[in-house]
Amino acid sequence: MIIERVISPGIAHFSYLVGSGKTAAVIDPRRDVDIYLDYAARHGVSITHIFETHRNEDYVIGSTELATLTGARIMHGHNFPFSYGEPVYEGDTFSFGNVTLSVLDTPGHTLESISLVLRDTAVSGIPIAVFTGDAVFAGDTGRTDFYGSDKTAEVSGILFDSIHEKILPLGENVILFPAHGAGSVCGTVIKDHPFTTTGYERRTSPDLQLDRQGFISRKTQQNHYYPPYFKKMEEFNQRGAPVLKRLPFLTAFSPQELASSLESYQILDIRSPTSFASGHIPGSFSIWRDGVASFSGWFLDYERPVLIVDDWSQYPDEILRTLIRIGYDNVKGYIAGGFNAWSRAGLPTGVTGAWPVQQLHHHLGGGEILVLDVRDAANRRLAGAIEGSMPVYVGELPGRTGLLSHDRHLACICDTGFKGSIAASILAREGFPYVTNILGGMAAWLMAGYPVIYPGEEK
Amino acid sequence: MIIERVISPGIAHFSYLVGSGKTAAVIDPRRDVDIYLDYAARHGVSITHIFETHRNEDYVIGSTELATLTGARIMHGHNFPFSYGEPVYEGDTFSFGNVTLSVLDTPGHTLESISLVLRDTAVSGIPIAVFTGDAVFAGDTGRTDFYGSDKTAEVSGILFDSIHEKILPLGENVILFPAHGAGSVCGTVIKDHPFTTTGYERRTSPDLQLDRQGFISRKTQQNHYYPPYFKKMEEFNQRGAPVLKRLPFLTAFSPQELASSLESYQILDIRSPTSFASGHIPGSFSIWRDGVASFSGWFLDYERPVLIVDDWSQYPDEILRTLIRIGYDNVKGYIAGGFNAWSRAGLPTGVTGAWPVQQLHHHLGGGEILVLDVRDAANRRLAGAIEGSMPVYVGELPGRTGLLSHDRHLACICDTGFKGSIAASILAREGFPYVTNILGGMAAWLMAGYPVIYPGEEK
Amino acid sequence: MIIERVISPGIAHFSYLVGSGKTAAVIDPRRDVDIYLDYAARHGVSITHIFETHRNEDYVIGSTELATLTGARIMHGHNFPFSYGEPVYEGDTFSFGNVTLSVLDTPGHTLESISLVLRDTAVSGIPIAVFTGDAVFAGDTGRTDFYGSDKTAEVSGILFDSIHEKILPLGENVILFPAHGAGSVCGTVIKDHPFTTTGYERRTSPDLQLDRQGFISRKTQQNHYYPPYFKKMEEFNQRGAPVLKRLPFLTAFSPQELASSLESYQILDIRSPTSFASGHIPGSFSIWRDGVASFSGWFLDYERPVLIVDDWSQYPDEILRTLIRIGYDNVKGYIAGGFNAWSRAGLPTGVTGAWPVQQLHHHLGGGEILVLDVRDAANRRLAGAIEGSMPVYVGELPGRTGLLSHDRHLACICDTGFKGSIAASILAREGFPYVTNILGGMAAWLMAGYPVIYPGEEK
Amino acid sequence: MIIERVISPGIAHFSYLVGSGKTAAVIDPRRDVDIYLDYAARHGVSITHIFETHRNEDYVIGSTELATLTGARIMHGHNFPFSYGEPVYEGDTFSFGNVTLSVLDTPGHTLESISLVLRDTAVSGIPIAVFTGDAVFAGDTGRTDFYGSDKTAEVSGILFDSIHEKILPLGENVILFPAHGAGSVCGTVIKDHPFTTTGYERRTSPDLQLDRQGFISRKTQQNHYYPPYFKKMEEFNQRGAPVLKRLPFLTAFSPQELASSLESYQILDIRSPTSFASGHIPGSFSIWRDGVASFSGWFLDYERPVLIVDDWSQYPDEILRTLIRIGYDNVKGYIAGGFNAWSRAGLPTGVTGAWPVQQLHHHLGGGEILVLDVRDAANRRLAGAIEGSMPVYVGELPGRTGLLSHDRHLACICDTGFKGSIAASILAREGFPYVTNILGGMAAWLMAGYPVIYPGEEK
Repeated sequence: MIIERVISPGIAHFSYLVGSGKTAAVIDPRRDVDIYLDYAARHGVSITHIFETHRNEDYVIGSTELATLTGARIMHGHNFPFSYGEPVYEGDTFSFGNVTLSVLDTPGHTLESISLVLRDTAVSGIPIAVFTGDAVFAGDTGRTDFYGSDKTAEVSGILFDSIHEKILPLGENVILFPAHGAGSVCGTVIKDHPFTTTGYERRTSPDLQLDRQGFISRKTQQNHYYPPYFKKMEEFNQRGAPVLKRLPFLTAFSPQELASSLESYQILDIRSPTSFASGHIPGSFSIWRDGVASFSGWFLDYERPVLIVDDWSQYPDEILRTLIRIGYDNVKGYIAGGFNAWSRAGLPTGVTGAWPVQQLHHHLGGGEILVLDVRDAANRRLAGAIEGSMPVYVGELPGRTGLLSHDRHLACICDTGFKGSIAASILAREGFPYVTNILGGMAAWLMAGYPVIYPGEEK
Repeated sequence: MIIERVISPGIAHFSYLVGSGKTAAVIDPRRDVDIYLDYAARHGVSITHIFETHRNEDYVIGSTELATLTGARIMHGHNFPFSYGEPVYEGDTFSFGNVTLSVLDTPGHTLESISLVLRDTAVSGIPIAVFTGDAVFAGDTGRTDFYGSDKTAEVSGILFDSIHEKILPLGENVILFPAHGAGSVCGTVIKDHPFTTTGYERRTSPDLQLDRQGFISRKTQQNHYYPPYFKKMEEFNQRGAPVLKRLPFLTAFSPQELASSLESYQILDIRSPTSFASGHIPGSFSIWRDGVASFSGWFLDYERPVLIVDDWSQYPDEILRTLIRIGYDNVKGYIAGGFNAWSRAGLPTGVTGAWPVQQLHHHLGGGEILVLDVRDAANRRLAGAIEGSMPVYVGELPGRTGLLSHDRHLACICDTGFKGSIAASILAREGFPYVTNILGGMAAWLMAGYPVIYPGEEK
Repeated sequence: MIIERVISPGIAHFSYLVGSGKTAAVIDPRRDVDIYLDYAARHGVSITHIFETHRNEDYVIGSTELATLTGARIMHGHNFPFSYGEPVYEGDTFSFGNVTLSVLDTPGHTLESISLVLRDTAVSGIPIAVFTGDAVFAGDTGRTDFYGSDKTAEVSGILFDSIHEKILPLGENVILFPAHGAGSVCGTVIKDHPFTTTGYERRTSPDLQLDRQGFISRKTQQNHYYPPYFKKMEEFNQRGAPVLKRLPFLTAFSPQELASSLESYQILDIRSPTSFASGHIPGSFSIWRDGVASFSGWFLDYERPVLIVDDWSQYPDEILRTLIRIGYDNVKGYIAGGFNAWSRAGLPTGVTGAWPVQQLHHHLGGGEILVLDVRDAANRRLAGAIEGSMPVYVGELPGRTGLLSHDRHLACICDTGFKGSIAASILAREGFPYVTNILGGMAAWLMAGYPVIYPGEEK
Repeated sequence: MIIERVISPGIAHFSYLVGSGKTAAVIDPRRDVDIYLDYAARHGVSITHIFETHRNEDYVIGSTELATLTGARIMHGHNFPFSYGEPVYEGDTFSFGNVTLSVLDTPGHTLESISLVLRDTAVSGIPIAVFTGDAVFAGDTGRTDFYGSDKTAEVSGILFDSIHEKILPLGENVILFPAHGAGSVCGTVIKDHPFTTTGYERRTSPDLQLDRQGFISRKTQQNHYYPPYFKKMEEFNQRGAPVLKRLPFLTAFSPQELASSLESYQILDIRSPTSFASGHIPGSFSIWRDGVASFSGWFLDYERPVLIVDDWSQYPDEILRTLIRIGYDNVKGYIAGGFNAWSRAGLPTGVTGAWPVQQLHHHLGGGEILVLDVRDAANRRLAGAIEGSMPVYVGELPGRTGLLSHDRHLACICDTGFKGSIAASILAREGFPYVTNILGGMAAWLMAGYPVIYPGEEK
């Protein structure tokens, strides 16, 4: 029996190749599909089926890509008008050698969501594992806000029923393979457990300790952001994404070439916050490399071509893959030699501030500094906040800069210092002259022993 | 939380790197330890502890090697006089970030065997997983014959108690990570399930459906072979194996160099059975590449240096690793250009027969052919046998060739055609002139529709 | 300055990425072009030009593929009606940073052949290197038989002039980068020197020691084979080959699937001669893996799909690349588990003989054996032959089997034992019942001290 | 024939594996020798000899390491009391299959320097290539200052004779394989030509256009720095370096662990200058990753253990190899999570300035800024300097900080902005409060069009 898990960092996405004998299925493929082909070749199997546990919002599914290359059939839940693939219904069972995958309808996260139950028919009818998509994660359950706030309660109830009437009744002993791991925006606080079981979740997952009403109440109170790129994902994943066949080849741009057509590109600066602060190409977005998957979709538009800037041009291929996974097919190239080449060329260079928390603490109190807290609301609530700080979630900052004065020094703080750099870059792009990112964010602030206030304590 | 499984094919061995935060443990490391160092570097952790679930018989454990390179402490069960490392006792708990590993004494396979229970203390006291060593496998339990046949019943009872009083009480929902997978000689019929749980095993594993007496009865009836190299493994694993620091560098031998000192070496021919039959270096052992781990220990001695022969010298490094894992530190080199170079050199070449089953069927009946059935006894019993065939397990063939006539044509048959080639090579080494391997073995015989008889049917 | 050489084994083809600063050219790309993209990314350059030194006969040039992926311009000699790309003329010079490539017309091998002279303009106008395509190789010059035997003398004279009036006048000190290395069919006896210079060749290459008349005389006497696939290559390379964007994904076939549609496929068995002889899928072609590039084009047709058989399915990707390089776009898959899976399935199995030379020597003389010498004519002439052997070049064997008796034992011998296996497979396909390949070929025969006769000595 | 070149960046070192048939030699191995073993295995050869073209000053030669692993003999020039290996003499010839390497005494760079002449004896007595060590490079010749300034003229004359009487007489057509490429401290202005010939060098290399007197005069006027670590290299390379067998395993340190014993370590911060400036661990040395080979030896001592800091812990293995090549065997670990983990921990953070050149230009003139020009003297002379700037070579800065005032703002500028960051880190370590690195260095200053003065113009 073959079970290979493919982890796509950034979107914290898990996909699976499952099979036995000479055939296999892929569950929820990502868009750069080489890795499934490699696993299939290594195991000597053909990929005959592709299953989508649900229509995704956070990444472009690779079904059409993989089907084009392998001839596999694409199967998904029946409760949604997909323009491609074939519907499956509860109880449908597919064989791969001795192994079977059986469909469970498990709506909730989305209404057409399915789970797939794995059995080894040569051994027993008892399930070995269940692929739950975004219904259940390690320590968490899927978000239920996609149908509008007026539907969240109803949808949460549907999810509760799917979990309690479909998944948990499979038994305590079933290995649970979800579609996302810690860090995904599809959950709230997914645990970093690489493996879990239905039984472990039933006994330990906070959401699963609640009754139906409690569950609905908890889910409706959760705050989820809805980045603008989700719309694009929905569209791609409804119609079937364009087939690429291979990743585009990235062109090496010289600093001079870029400087002469800077307006035509969106510059994605993937360096660390310290590196960005001391010097960057004017107008660039600062999104650190591990944040590209989660944050690009808030800021980059899908039409203007993207160029990548790094310290030494080490990661263009990694970043390209990440961007392709969320539908940015218009990545054109990178600056050869990275930012260091730009600065060697004597070209105009943007600068923002970067302060250790000690320096922020030292400067506070005078009033000339406005601390912008760009964390998400839950984080601010749980971890506390700097007194007087103004909460604006980083993703929503572009639409809310009108509130800010150009005369004050804007100190952006987030949880660990990365999103603060995004925020600083957004403000710098919009012409704010005094912008500083706080290194290490609230994590550092707390470790250094500085005070915070909690909701209700604010004056 | 980090759980990385390292699979060593051939010995079908699973080892694990487990940790969180900045530290990790390795459970049952193999001897070529680079991969644990790579994983540790990738996750940014230090390896602080090495656990041995038990003293192994089938491979050299890499504890001393890994401890030398990392400074980690070596821990093992207290019920055996190891010359290195430190004893642990039931209930001892070791922390790696949020993760803990707690010791369970689970004797049976060996008397000092332990299991290690994994918990995430930040989440719950409920176990996530248990590392069972050779106590419980997927669909099987550890062999219990190591203390002599007069002790097998007693030891089997001890194993039963360990499983039923220690492991299964952890709950149904615990992921079970054993030390071996399908193909290991440490079990009988381990399933090829990459993942399983305590609950799935309790419900489906044949051994776990039995009561104590039934279990003992089943275990005592099982036939296990005890290859001579196990003695060497026991010795290494009691004293601590010699530290290599790196794999030896293999010398490329020309055919002429080898021909002039053929007596000094053990020639290990890892080609396919078809390739071996048509031509080989006289005196070589035919052990196909995936069989090296399981069968070398029956035939190769530990003193004489080993040379590797392949078709085109593609796999020396893979074979070297395999041999090092079972303590053959005296691998010297390989024939540059493989067997093809030998035949180009016009040197004396051995030839054995290789027949498709159709040809065997055609020739049988005349009486001048003796079919040697070199499968293990269980396989012969279950799958049936060719009427008139003589059973001799391949591993025991060297001591039993005195029974065989040089005048008859000896047709060696095994299950799929590989061990038959080993047998043919052993017989050719001992000067039997008419030796043939049956391609595809009994699998082919059965697929071709030829008749077999079962125990009791033999006349 | 960047000079990366890409070696494609089998066709013994050298291509080059050359550049400096931020741009580069590729000279004579192969069709699986990923490697040039990788080098370009590693050096941080864009590929702006692709040069073809000539229209190739022995492989499909990757120009259209690479141009599609990079947007590079394709340049070739003006003296041929290519359907794609742009003509260049003597003296045309292209800049890549400090580096220039200047065109020399060097007809001969083909009439539109060009060479490219590399200079570092920041240092000197003296050439550093010359890319000679198939005009001059290490120790050899390009074949001149492509325009028909009545034109060979004229074309050889043209090549002589190109070498002596264009290439050698560049000076003694110029590094010479040809398009092929040892083993290529585009020369006669190319040396295995990884590097050479114009001066070294002028002083040591046998062809370059001759005057015009001697050169023409030597070239017209050389025997070159013209495999049927050359026609396909000419066609592809005139029109521009189909763009693939990526290699096809190979399907894993079970033995049973294949057995039920054996007629539909061409089976390419890439195992060693020993492995093929003892058992193979009936009707398969035995072409060892390093021979696929040179010999497939003699035997495989371009329409029927190809399946690959190996010992353990290790090399399908390597073989796929090789076949794609010579235009076999119709490779469908491979047998999962290799030939061993076929024999385990009990399916009908072909067998041919394989004899060490000692056995051939022992059997000769009786007259019932016909030795077929399948080497090329030059090899037979130079190395001698077995008395009474019948010369038929392996590539021409399919059309000449009508001459052979089905009653005689046909012993195929070549130079080292590989082409003999091809020949044996061709004869077995055509139903000859007694076919044997001689292991190690004439190399083994000579090393074993057996006698040969030379041309003129035959009775 | 095999010629594989191994490039070690940073020290810009070229070593070679040369052979044919079944044996090979390695010329000037680096200390992490795995790559030679890999090449040997790939080509199916044994390494029988190791040649040292000379006793090196800039890196630890891997001869003892490689000899320990392979059993190869170590050969070097006779004119130096090496404690290991064997002397060779002019004319000594070593065979590797058809290939020979013959010794030429070519003293100058060092007095025991040899060159090795490569011939293919099956083809001709004419040399194919010459391995010149540090005698001749592409566009340059070896430095001649190692025997003291009073000997430079004499030694330069000796080098001139070696080149003109030994190397150039080999002929114009010989490929020249030196021991270093562009960027090495063993030459002055080595060209970035990956390949060259004796003839190309004779015609284009500035040093080779001069007569003996002109050559001596030029060489004696060249300025070379002598980093303190050269002493350690000399010692290692005279006695034979300690054999490691494998690279040490690096421990992952948490920020807290490091913070509690910061005094015990030398912190090597390999991030880009922008990243270092905005925040760093107090007391760390800023040496960018590609500068580690050339600059660590000026600043790090050999006794105190070294810890590596990066942005995200990506390069510890690469940096470890580099440090091991220059004898820093005491590398202990790296900060898990890189500097970002440090800042998240809220620990004290150092900050220096980083200015684009525009900002420097803006601030100059007031007098409160002292521009420290930390380039080497030749660079300052050739490229011009900022008026009023004070020249102090970065390597010599630690001993000369006594001259500097703590009250002035010290702006460090180098050629491209990296060595300026080293200088800034040195000054910050020594407590200077106002320290800034100029991004892009003089390259940026010139590109931005700001004025420079040349020697003699200074007032």
